Amino acid sequence: MLKYQQIAIDIEKYIEEHNLQQRDKLPVLENLMARFNVSKSTITKSLDLLEKKGVVYQVRGSGIFVRRHNREGYISLLSNQGFKKDLEEFNVTSEVVELKVCQPTEEAAYNLNIDQHQEVYYVKRIRYINGQTLCLEESYYNKSSVTYLNREIASESIFHYIQEGLGLKVGFSDIYLHVDKLNEEEAAYLGLKEGDPKLFMESIFHLTNGQPFDFSKVTYNYKHSQFFLQANSHIL
Amino acid sequence: MLKYQQIAIDIEKYIEEHNLQQRDKLPVLENLMARFNVSKSTITKSLDLLEKKGVVYQVRGSGIFVRRHNREGYISLLSNQGFKKDLEEFNVTSEVVELKVCQPTEEAAYNLNIDQHQEVYYVKRIRYINGQTLCLEESYYNKSSVTYLNREIASESIFHYIQEGLGLKVGFSDIYLHVDKLNEEEAAYLGLKEGDPKLFMESIFHLTNGQPFDFSKVTYNYKHSQFFLQANSHIL
Repeated sequence: MLKYQQIAIDIEKYIEEHNLQQRDKLPVLENLMARFNVSKSTITKSLDLLEKKGVVYQVRGSGIFVRRHNREGYISLLSNQGFKKDLEEFNVTSEVVELKVCQPTEEAAYNLNIDQHQEVYYVKRIRYINGQTLCLEESYYNKSSVTYLNREIASESIFHYIQEGLGLKVGFSDIYLHVDKLNEEEAAYLGLKEGDPKLFMESIFHLTNGQPFDFSKVTYNYKHSQFFLQANSHIL
Repeated sequence: MLKYQQIAIDIEKYIEEHNLQQRDKLPVLENLMARFNVSKSTITKSLDLLEKKGVVYQVRGSGIFVRRHNREGYISLLSNQGFKKDLEEFNVTSEVVELKVCQPTEEAAYNLNIDQHQEVYYVKRIRYINGQTLCLEESYYNKSSVTYLNREIASESIFHYIQEGLGLKVGFSDIYLHVDKLNEEEAAYLGLKEGDPKLFMESIFHLTNGQPFDFSKVTYNYKHSQFFLQANSHIL
């Protein structure tokens, strides 16, 4: 971890410990430099990172302010990237329904940018949040990147293992979502009725070298899932 | 618009015109500098912006590559921020159901960070995509920021007017979403049945100075709405 990344984490801790709220002002640059004992360029990079992450916003000529989603029980839409901290406030557990090495479906091969004869790990899990079904998840991991998986790992955080155990660097992801009605199988897994609403999300996760390594299809229980998302003006 | 922002737009055009696909490599820095006749620091800033926007990804020591969601018919989850270009491929029209100046609900006042006695524009619209109902939208605009609105403006793009007509600078937004069942009124507006699924999205849009100016509640027609979203590794 680079210094400015560590300082960014320290500033986040500062915000939490001081219980700063949305629109509260952070100390001026000079004070932050002194407090964290770093140069101006480091603190600037830390603040830029925190702005990208949606933790602060900077108003030119006015200062740096806290940005804080403040709705309890909402999950970051991007948290299944293994952004652990976000899920820490929830008690998320997993039940592995199936785990096998196989050839990918045509759809999975396409999204993983591999041939259909290349092997993948297929993992089907039910995930629980505070003891209730959160989602049904089917994932295809490119075996040439994710070289090993087992049930014990899959019952915990696979992303944690991929990063810490395998040392892979997770980069960007593309997410597709729509709403539909549950089919019979999905309803059974989630403890709901056929025809009930579902949020269906497909994600393609890439390594920092641009190679997709995980294609996941997730069906959420509408009763126990609500999401938040922070957008920045640079997308305009 | 600053120079690097203009060059970023030019590079996006270049990608489109050359029909570059996901994982295609961009010309090296020196070539881009020569082609667009700008300095290294400008081209670097342009590429950083494009990376934030999810248009390219950079692989250290290897180059800059194209990132391109390639599913037709998917709307950027952030497109109702007025990111017009994204909606251009769709034919989106609006029918104004109601437009009035009034005092906000308690919920709207809270989300707009104003007192309940301050006035807002309340706008209720049905939005259509390619002639079919896309969503039912209820918005509250802080009248001290959005000083004027009428039905004609509301039947077009309100965000375009806010930025171009009123000269306001749109900053970041916070989005909350969940899935539920349509009630009778919503179903009637969308031409669906009571109990059918819905995606329900609440957004709080802020100016660059951090002041919220728009609180919107949008109910999507699950048959005609599917979304994509790009996430970057900096959130990890």
